[in-house]
Amino acid sequence: MNPTIQNQLSHRTIREFTDEPVTSAQLATLLDVANRTATSNGMQQYSLLRITDPDMRRQMAQVSTQEYLTRCPELFVFIVDVYRNARIAEELGHTPESRADMDRFIQGFTDAALAAQNMTVAAESMGLGAVYFGSILNDPRRMVKILGLPQLTFPVVGLGIGHPNQEPQLKPRMPVELKVFENGYRVFDSYLDEMKAYDEEMQTYYDLRDANRRVDSFTKQVVTKLLNVIESRTTILQVVREQGFILKAEE
Amino acid sequence: MNPTIQNQLSHRTIREFTDEPVTSAQLATLLDVANRTATSNGMQQYSLLRITDPDMRRQMAQVSTQEYLTRCPELFVFIVDVYRNARIAEELGHTPESRADMDRFIQGFTDAALAAQNMTVAAESMGLGAVYFGSILNDPRRMVKILGLPQLTFPVVGLGIGHPNQEPQLKPRMPVELKVFENGYRVFDSYLDEMKAYDEEMQTYYDLRDANRRVDSFTKQVVTKLLNVIESRTTILQVVREQGFILKAEE
Repeated sequence: MNPTIQNQLSHRTIREFTDEPVTSAQLATLLDVANRTATSNGMQQYSLLRITDPDMRRQMAQVSTQEYLTRCPELFVFIVDVYRNARIAEELGHTPESRADMDRFIQGFTDAALAAQNMTVAAESMGLGAVYFGSILNDPRRMVKILGLPQLTFPVVGLGIGHPNQEPQLKPRMPVELKVFENGYRVFDSYLDEMKAYDEEMQTYYDLRDANRRVDSFTKQVVTKLLNVIESRTTILQVVREQGFILKAEE
Repeated sequence: MNPTIQNQLSHRTIREFTDEPVTSAQLATLLDVANRTATSNGMQQYSLLRITDPDMRRQMAQVSTQEYLTRCPELFVFIVDVYRNARIAEELGHTPESRADMDRFIQGFTDAALAAQNMTVAAESMGLGAVYFGSILNDPRRMVKILGLPQLTFPVVGLGIGHPNQEPQLKPRMPVELKVFENGYRVFDSYLDEMKAYDEEMQTYYDLRDANRRVDSFTKQVVTKLLNVIESRTTILQVVREQGFILKAEE
């Protein structure tokens, strides 16, 4: 097993970092790796924001409700960026509706996520740790404002990077057999039955992680998370529209 | 520079593969890596289809219009999968509307893309090559049918993997400075000016790649691609709705 894969198989989220900064050489490499990532149609419809301003970070942490966001040595936000190419086309005399369609949005969203994961792998290969912040979308409208995003851009995911100051256990994943299907989707008779062993594994993991924390099986977590709706998260599509994208969802 | 990053910085799309198969040990490792990828909220709202059936591949290639899709030694489709957790909740007596909301869709979409990129890096670290097929979304409705996807699932991206039978040049990327901004989005006065050097670099790249092929700068490609709309790609959001997701895009 090569070192790349060894690192990938030991991936865990790192939420606490030492004070040691990410060097400017490391930072440059991380950005180069992100920039080299495959991109839909070669169109590079994403961008990155590097957030160093403490006040912006504080506001972002209010949205994410994860205070440790403010303390990540490096903090990035990967965004859909269709604005840049729309401006290029405009300067060349073209303003087709397509520049703002959902196809472009989805391409940019994919680009941004691929680049984020590529950077994560690169960081981990350097011995750095990483934490994703999906929580930046807890309030998409406010996040757009905090980040000062123009039309035809949209935040996808945040990523914190630094030198790990904790060594968490590997968090168990459901077996590959429940997630990988050959030549067509497989529906199971009872998902609770299929998840039994994994549920037990998850409970043992939580027991070991923190004896004082309430222990939940995976299936119970699914229900808890589905019932705890963050209302402002459900505005995603409205904010996508407010950012200038044409939804065209109607028949 | 460590071997992981060396590989990442030499990423290029591989479209032609030798007959040498991906071994079952390699396949198992690739799936384990995908499964270990970070996932929104720990909810694992994505799945993978491995497509080995020649007839399914032929149909997929009709949608993608990329014939070489049929010939990839391994072919995967990463999908949003909210169905599995919805079934778990249902078996536990809960059918909240949230199980089908756009928040869940976006989480699953992000999960699927992160897992795809993680698998790509793993494959490349083994000396394998990879090609993304964003083109599976050229006709989302038909792709859903071909793949036999149930409600609350949706295709994100295809990925072909195998032993490279070509050694393409590195495709130039626009400079990091046009894509990475500190503390807020940066708008440039003239994008054509900013892209001038990159446009020249791209033309040289195409000249070297294939002297007979029409040579286009990046900025001209942007216009060409915006003007060549694939109508069925613009149905994405309708098909997301047909797959049972609640769009709630209205004010």
